[in-house]
Amino acid sequence: MTSTDNPGDLRRSIRAGTHSGNTSGLAPGFVQCNLVVLPEADACHFLRFCQLNPKPCPLVAVGDPGDPALPSLGAIDIRTDLPRYRVFRDGVPSEEVGDIGELWRDDFVSFALGCSFSFEEALLADGLDVRNVSEGCNVPMYRTSITCAPAGPFAGPMVVSMRPFPPADAIRAIQVCTRFPAVHGAPIHLGDPGAIGIRDLRQPDFGEPVTVREGEVPLFWACGVTPQVALEAARLPLAITHSPGCMLVTDLPNARLAVM
Amino acid sequence: MTSTDNPGDLRRSIRAGTHSGNTSGLAPGFVQCNLVVLPEADACHFLRFCQLNPKPCPLVAVGDPGDPALPSLGAIDIRTDLPRYRVFRDGVPSEEVGDIGELWRDDFVSFALGCSFSFEEALLADGLDVRNVSEGCNVPMYRTSITCAPAGPFAGPMVVSMRPFPPADAIRAIQVCTRFPAVHGAPIHLGDPGAIGIRDLRQPDFGEPVTVREGEVPLFWACGVTPQVALEAARLPLAITHSPGCMLVTDLPNARLAVM
Repeated sequence: MTSTDNPGDLRRSIRAGTHSGNTSGLAPGFVQCNLVVLPEADACHFLRFCQLNPKPCPLVAVGDPGDPALPSLGAIDIRTDLPRYRVFRDGVPSEEVGDIGELWRDDFVSFALGCSFSFEEALLADGLDVRNVSEGCNVPMYRTSITCAPAGPFAGPMVVSMRPFPPADAIRAIQVCTRFPAVHGAPIHLGDPGAIGIRDLRQPDFGEPVTVREGEVPLFWACGVTPQVALEAARLPLAITHSPGCMLVTDLPNARLAVM
Repeated sequence: MTSTDNPGDLRRSIRAGTHSGNTSGLAPGFVQCNLVVLPEADACHFLRFCQLNPKPCPLVAVGDPGDPALPSLGAIDIRTDLPRYRVFRDGVPSEEVGDIGELWRDDFVSFALGCSFSFEEALLADGLDVRNVSEGCNVPMYRTSITCAPAGPFAGPMVVSMRPFPPADAIRAIQVCTRFPAVHGAPIHLGDPGAIGIRDLRQPDFGEPVTVREGEVPLFWACGVTPQVALEAARLPLAITHSPGCMLVTDLPNARLAVM
């Protein structure tokens, strides 16, 4: 077992600065999470935002104020255990850093949110073609006309990721993902992109376009970029997230998230 | 509780000849089945046909040769307990009768197959609009270009039933029906009717057309008419089925068929 297969070893490499890149495909079988770090004064609103919008913002763990540990997910120090962090000031991404020890405050609260890597693994294990994986690119993501339920300063559109399948595979993909509500669960829409305000599948707002073949049905999943967009809208003086693709790697097996 | 709410009471009324019509909506909450009765010489092929094609032909119970009872489904005499039977001679529907006591033979084997009434009840209980129910008509059914796996003389196209839903409801309907593999389970196709050889949704091969509204997605379920079509193709000298809509009412609760 190499050090990037085991989540604990991988986090130690990241903490030591010997791994600083993308975590996609590493520590296979283990849950990776989106990270949001906020001052306690904003954390309650954000917690409520997540509970109001569980499909784009599925909470896997929340830290105690000032505590950089997330013991339910492993021996984690949230200040050092992600390869890259994105710092938002007044809602604007202002810098990317390799650790947040200098920025950490006694009132910071960490949120670990489920990520599509887990359900993509379940789709692949089922023998389905996950187009962004087979084409080796980032999944295409789109702002939609679906409005999240607001909470305090947090508000905005739901962002979705899209994966196309032949119809029978689309039905199977819905079944597979239904087992994993903690990582966005079943799709929220299928078929006509225009029905949820997407003009052109070839022009995603985030990520890269993938091939949609004749006869395939696009499936749209609520996406973890949604809370980042809500975070920008909130214009908090200071907030921190993971850098895209550089996730929190946990000791939690993906299988453990299956509700059945 | 009226006599048509309780499955045992309803079967007694049917047996006594005081109820001779459709069973749709009666004995709510209890499984109703498609019936096929065949001579033992053909039964093995048919059993294999069902096992090869479980989505259109989900076996709920099989009787012993010559035995008109199906004890796993209640105190049933298969010769008298359906309101109407259809008799096929050389593959052609030749007559409809109120009981098959006169036709019964020592080598007859009964097959009870799952029926869409059970999953429609689950969809309605979930608050979904099942169009054929809300429009008060028979569900539209279509011959498809999907070929069943043949077994002996049994072969033919898969027949599907169609129910349209808005996209989010279509996803929910897939989830709900997935719990009920014994009554056709999840749809086998969604979206483009032409992809499975259906030319015009407004012209079903069986049943009646339903309204498909702008933006709705048609879902297609494997249908219990499939074995009847295979039965016609087999051109057996003698075979008996239920008459459409006049089903075998059982003591089995629908909920008992849920796999989870």
